[in-house]
Amino acid sequence: MTEYDPENVFAKILRGEIPSSRVYEDDETVALMDIMPRTDGHVLVIPKSPCRNMLDASSVELAAVIATVQKIAQAMKVAFEADGVTVQQFNEAAGGQEVFHLHFHVLPRYEGVSMRPPGKMGDFDLIAKHADKIRAALG
Amino acid sequence: MTEYDPENVFAKILRGEIPSSRVYEDDETVALMDIMPRTDGHVLVIPKSPCRNMLDASSVELAAVIATVQKIAQAMKVAFEADGVTVQQFNEAAGGQEVFHLHFHVLPRYEGVSMRPPGKMGDFDLIAKHADKIRAALG
Repeated sequence: MTEYDPENVFAKILRGEIPSSRVYEDDETVALMDIMPRTDGHVLVIPKSPCRNMLDASSVELAAVIATVQKIAQAMKVAFEADGVTVQQFNEAAGGQEVFHLHFHVLPRYEGVSMRPPGKMGDFDLIAKHADKIRAALG
Repeated sequence: MTEYDPENVFAKILRGEIPSSRVYEDDETVALMDIMPRTDGHVLVIPKSPCRNMLDASSVELAAVIATVQKIAQAMKVAFEADGVTVQQFNEAAGGQEVFHLHFHVLPRYEGVSMRPPGKMGDFDLIAKHADKIRAALG
């Protein structure tokens, strides 16, 4: 198993070295807006502790992260009146992973609207508005 | 929230009314081969108790399912010498869901090999061989 690289972008975000748009945080996890949203309101959920992906995560880390994923998915339904939610989680480069800190993608979905292709930077003002809606839905 | 339909295909599989290729089972969850595999070795993980998806699952159901997802992902790396693993979970039709009993897709991935399009029936002999390999890796 490859070692965890503490210079990955999510580690830097967790240390506050890079700004991020956090919508939720608890002792074990953080939920933040994806800056390359594949649908409007795309969120990432990560553990605070270092693990590369699901293959090396502890059961405690994984349980905490999935509980936050569920919380965010439920909030999206309210925040955006989303018709559905798609969850994706990638392990290793062949599995689609680009940042090697465990993360779940949580994507609100709308009838008849496809996901955008990956890798396109979003509009930061719009992302901030979506973050506000999710925070409001989380109460 | 729409009600759970006890006649969905996974409910029938859990009751033994439809055959399936189970690779793992514990008190709360079952892992079985997807008969329309999008990659060789594609597995589904479901809870034994009735819930439609992540939006109405209990935290206990969800924690049990994700623990089995991890177990299967780790076993796939060994069983197939997979280069990676992709996890997908769909909620409501707009989110990509077709069977309304909570399920996670766990897909072994191989360098340079794309996922096949959805909806194509697999070769049952090959699926049985893949199931054997996963069972062996699970010990």
